[in-house]
Amino acid sequence: MTGHGDLAARTSAAAVLARCDELATHTDLPDGLIQRVYLSPEHAAVNALAAGWMREAGLTTWQDAAGNQCGRLEGATPGLPALLLGSHLDTVPSAGRYDGILGVLTAIAVVDRVRASGRSLPFALEVVAFGDEEGTRFGTALLGSRALAGTWLDAWWELADEQGIRLHDAFETFGLDPAAIGRAARTSNDFVGYLETHIEQGPVLEEQDRPLGIVSSIAGARRFQITITGKAGHSGTPWVHRRDALAGASEAIVAIERLARDADLIATIGHLEVFPDAVNVIAGRAEFSLDLRGRFDADRDLAWQQIEALLAEICDTRGLHVGVEQTHSAPAAHCSDRMRGVIAAGVRAAGAGTADAGREPLELLSMAGHDAMAVGHLTEIGMLFVRCAGGVSHHPDESVTEADVAAALDAFEAAVLALADSPGAMPAPQDPA
Amino acid sequence: MTGHGDLAARTSAAAVLARCDELATHTDLPDGLIQRVYLSPEHAAVNALAAGWMREAGLTTWQDAAGNQCGRLEGATPGLPALLLGSHLDTVPSAGRYDGILGVLTAIAVVDRVRASGRSLPFALEVVAFGDEEGTRFGTALLGSRALAGTWLDAWWELADEQGIRLHDAFETFGLDPAAIGRAARTSNDFVGYLETHIEQGPVLEEQDRPLGIVSSIAGARRFQITITGKAGHSGTPWVHRRDALAGASEAIVAIERLARDADLIATIGHLEVFPDAVNVIAGRAEFSLDLRGRFDADRDLAWQQIEALLAEICDTRGLHVGVEQTHSAPAAHCSDRMRGVIAAGVRAAGAGTADAGREPLELLSMAGHDAMAVGHLTEIGMLFVRCAGGVSHHPDESVTEADVAAALDAFEAAVLALADSPGAMPAPQDPA
Repeated sequence: MTGHGDLAARTSAAAVLARCDELATHTDLPDGLIQRVYLSPEHAAVNALAAGWMREAGLTTWQDAAGNQCGRLEGATPGLPALLLGSHLDTVPSAGRYDGILGVLTAIAVVDRVRASGRSLPFALEVVAFGDEEGTRFGTALLGSRALAGTWLDAWWELADEQGIRLHDAFETFGLDPAAIGRAARTSNDFVGYLETHIEQGPVLEEQDRPLGIVSSIAGARRFQITITGKAGHSGTPWVHRRDALAGASEAIVAIERLARDADLIATIGHLEVFPDAVNVIAGRAEFSLDLRGRFDADRDLAWQQIEALLAEICDTRGLHVGVEQTHSAPAAHCSDRMRGVIAAGVRAAGAGTADAGREPLELLSMAGHDAMAVGHLTEIGMLFVRCAGGVSHHPDESVTEADVAAALDAFEAAVLALADSPGAMPAPQDPA
Repeated sequence: MTGHGDLAARTSAAAVLARCDELATHTDLPDGLIQRVYLSPEHAAVNALAAGWMREAGLTTWQDAAGNQCGRLEGATPGLPALLLGSHLDTVPSAGRYDGILGVLTAIAVVDRVRASGRSLPFALEVVAFGDEEGTRFGTALLGSRALAGTWLDAWWELADEQGIRLHDAFETFGLDPAAIGRAARTSNDFVGYLETHIEQGPVLEEQDRPLGIVSSIAGARRFQITITGKAGHSGTPWVHRRDALAGASEAIVAIERLARDADLIATIGHLEVFPDAVNVIAGRAEFSLDLRGRFDADRDLAWQQIEALLAEICDTRGLHVGVEQTHSAPAAHCSDRMRGVIAAGVRAAGAGTADAGREPLELLSMAGHDAMAVGHLTEIGMLFVRCAGGVSHHPDESVTEADVAAALDAFEAAVLALADSPGAMPAPQDPA
């Protein structure tokens, strides 16, 4: 329906931001709050929207066996390995409009520009909109990208959401066949690399007055579900008879915070629930999450050992029981020299009209996890960071400027073209199987 | 349907315990867990059951304008002031079978015995099964008994449950007229006193090997809803930019516990909720309850001032905001000399076959709140405590022995008769209005 005359309009920063606004209307929360979780009706709705935009950009589209929305534009000859561009469309609760989403829409807009330019590339272009990066619904992150990377774990079928719905059943409700999950898995031969645009969870770029940054590596998070069990009882119970799970959890949270700060790590307890959760009943059980991340995996793993000892000590002193379960673990993921190079070339190319003009592009460590970590199991990865106001993300206040998004579009397009021009962009022909 | 020949069977401890079991089947939780909240279908169901048992015991029954189930047996002449006997039928989440319930069923069984004995009393007997003591549904306790006491507050109509249903609308759904709430209010002239049987939330009785105890006074609780507000954000956010509401709440909970212990008070944080409550999002808001109680109101009130200062200091240091709202406040309630005396007479009379034989009855302070506190605004109060295993209440493990319940029935009956025999039991005739 959209003619080629609308290309500039639909690949501009304003158009990308308008699409972010449109996606934000697909939410399961009231009052303008955004939450869009894996395998939900909202997931299906935004996949359909993204598929339409991909087709407008000239991509052939399909939804893969894990519910990721995919598209492909052939290169100079059909069947070439692809440069994969993408990010995710799912959100945390009370999310912003850009985390993940901006990366998907930037990828689509850049493919649209490249196709319209008529340039013949030595690789195909694929776009992927992952269905789960945040792990909001099932507590385990990167489900979408790990399906694509072929690192899906069978144990995940038994994960259940808050309503008790198993991932296995959610697949079927969404119209997917759990037995076919393997079809979502791609191989290293399919790709020449992966590039992702994402808002920075900073605010380093803002502090340094830079619209764009190059990711050097992504810190790996480990996540745990910690359950402290005491004994529920009447709020009039004397101290000596109390086994208060929430008092123990609170002491643990304070201690974990102190330990992580001292070790130059980041620890987040974002989820906590108490049972039975009544004003006049001592908490018999407290369940909380721990997300632990740092620059170096070894520091993080040592800190976790110390945290385990500390939990045992607190619970022993208080007559409580503690159980821990690791729900997620990712090693730090490093962006390849080549992909950092093409992103840097893109940032330089886009820099003319920005505060970056004349400055060497800035490299940053990402403390936040990204789909790129999972895709890194298959192919080399690179990431472009876009400044966001105050570095705020996972919050309705997430905000980017149109000028920064315009710079990101130019940089991401230039990065794709830089890769096309680089030696060895076209891999050697594969032997027939 | 039940003839007088069944009297011994239905007023025995075994029968009372069987009725406790029957009431426990009326719950809104699965898997045998008990929760029965104010103005729910389960509330209606247990009122109907209690009304039937009251009628079998010879009482004339009605449900009052607040949903309390009431019954009356006239004394020597019709229209005499009544001795009110009762407790509550609502529960906390994951409750036991006896807290409140045992008191209602003991009252009904004792009226049945007195009526069957043919004794003519100088007062009427009334039984009340209060619809809300725990405050589970609307966060404010003693709604049933405060309606009867005439201390209902209009502001309560706006209280909402977790589903957002206002108390006002819950009244209408239950078939009650909010405008008629004043009809539930009784006056001092209606009563000669109030007696309540309740399990001890101890375990002092167990430690002292006593089946029964006499309550001297009931500690008054103050309850607060405390809201700490920070800023939600990505779990990768550096420490310097974090405004973590749950970290602040945890520090506060640990500090409140220490302060209350040192002041010989009891503090319970039984409810805590974080928002948005996701593994990978810093908590932007934490809401928790505080239930603060002690032997002396003045100590408790001083401690609350110290807690307020402590909350302000923690939140100031962490860049958080704190809001507090008092949701409940009750002064300590004292049992009258006369009512303590008749309960003591009852315990002595029942003591022959128990470990109490030959020992002076034991007086106890109740750290738990009771309907008697509200009824104390109208008339003098007395309470009989029954030993429960480990002092555990507000938990599925609540447990009483048949022997102790038998002793409680004997003692409660003897207390009623002791009051009938006491000088001045029959108040002077009232002047006609």
